[in-house]
Amino acid sequence: MASGWFYMSCMVLGSLGSMCILFTTYWMQYWRGGFAWDGTVLMFNWHPVLMVSGMVVLYGAASLVYRLPASWVGPKLPWKVLHAALHLLAFTVTVVGLTAVFGFHNHSKITHLYSLHSWLGITTVALFACQWFLGFAVFLLPWASQWLRSLLKPVHVFFGACILSLSIASVISGINEKLFFVLKNATRPYSSLPGEAVFANSTGILVVSFGLLVLYILLASSWRRPDPGALTDRQLLLQLLPGSRPLPVTYMPVPLR
Amino acid sequence: MASGWFYMSCMVLGSLGSMCILFTTYWMQYWRGGFAWDGTVLMFNWHPVLMVSGMVVLYGAASLVYRLPASWVGPKLPWKVLHAALHLLAFTVTVVGLTAVFGFHNHSKITHLYSLHSWLGITTVALFACQWFLGFAVFLLPWASQWLRSLLKPVHVFFGACILSLSIASVISGINEKLFFVLKNATRPYSSLPGEAVFANSTGILVVSFGLLVLYILLASSWRRPDPGALTDRQLLLQLLPGSRPLPVTYMPVPLR
Repeated sequence: MASGWFYMSCMVLGSLGSMCILFTTYWMQYWRGGFAWDGTVLMFNWHPVLMVSGMVVLYGAASLVYRLPASWVGPKLPWKVLHAALHLLAFTVTVVGLTAVFGFHNHSKITHLYSLHSWLGITTVALFACQWFLGFAVFLLPWASQWLRSLLKPVHVFFGACILSLSIASVISGINEKLFFVLKNATRPYSSLPGEAVFANSTGILVVSFGLLVLYILLASSWRRPDPGALTDRQLLLQLLPGSRPLPVTYMPVPLR
Repeated sequence: MASGWFYMSCMVLGSLGSMCILFTTYWMQYWRGGFAWDGTVLMFNWHPVLMVSGMVVLYGAASLVYRLPASWVGPKLPWKVLHAALHLLAFTVTVVGLTAVFGFHNHSKITHLYSLHSWLGITTVALFACQWFLGFAVFLLPWASQWLRSLLKPVHVFFGACILSLSIASVISGINEKLFFVLKNATRPYSSLPGEAVFANSTGILVVSFGLLVLYILLASSWRRPDPGALTDRQLLLQLLPGSRPLPVTYMPVPLR
């Protein structure tokens, strides 16, 4: 597929991701009183913004490093370091996002981790931590054999996609829960769809759209860095660039029908 | 991968799927008063059971038809018919599940489609309908060319997986929302984690586990029916069965390094 399409998808993705963060921030600033780090509900307001930024937008961007055409040729190590570093940044933002909700709960004597949203959310963050450490140990440190890496790579990609899907499910249940909480005794309840409800519901749909586009580019598009040993049309094309040397090839049987 | 592993995964999948339906039914029967079709909340109780059965369990089972080893050889048409028929059954169960919640809302004068759960859920069902009709028109009716089918197949598989992921997000937000509703004025609120809350949260985690296992078998396992033109080890093995004829082959270049 032409790299023009890839960059157009990246632009759509960048716009969607920015909108996810901006919409969540605007919701918390305009309707929920803004931000503070004092144990009150204003501290809680960091939670949705940081979870959407960390577990969805940054996580999504970090997942797609190997889909950048610049990563298709040349040494893989710098791209591995970038992939791990961006995910570490996403994880750090996530941990600060969790601190915000735990701090608010402690200060306001609210029980921790009782809702299904929280059960799923904390499981997702724990899986993210395991995925990062396993990825670091197997793919970045030099001890693992090529055989082990080839064996674990599809599992790593699959769990990466799962963690993003679970993040999206957590965000959806979180927005839903928050709207039921805050519009419970409002003049215009959630069921009458006041401005805040339409805005926050739309934010949820934006998050879903961003997540699905990331998953499409990650799993279903042809913009992949080819495995060593598999030569694609794109790689063959890159072989024709000035200064490049053709690869030695052998022949394997494929069926005629 | 050995087919023994496949059948073990199918057993785990069957158990998880049955548990998803049984747990949801038990939750509605034991804690929410059981079932009726009279416009009251007892009519609503069909909604979670039928949505989990239709959009998650039956949908998941229908998605995996081409992963059955029996489908790997021989004519594809009977498997296509089974795939479409099971999905149509899943869709029918889903529509009855939606009727249950719309009937309850009409009878109890509750606004339709205001929560993010309902926005996401109805979008998912609409996508499912589009996916079924497009799949039927392109892959089952005989008019579409092989080129068009090959082009649309990865898109069909990807959207199939997306619809399941969105169903899971809808189920999670639905369970979360229902628990906040019904335990709002209870002696033991949701935050004190009464038996019902632990049971329903666990049902949500079961649904997530079932969904992830379906997605693993669908997207990341090697249990796929090979495309015409691509010969796998498994197909080569099947060529050695009594009465089979070897396929004619040609040779294509692959890189040596």
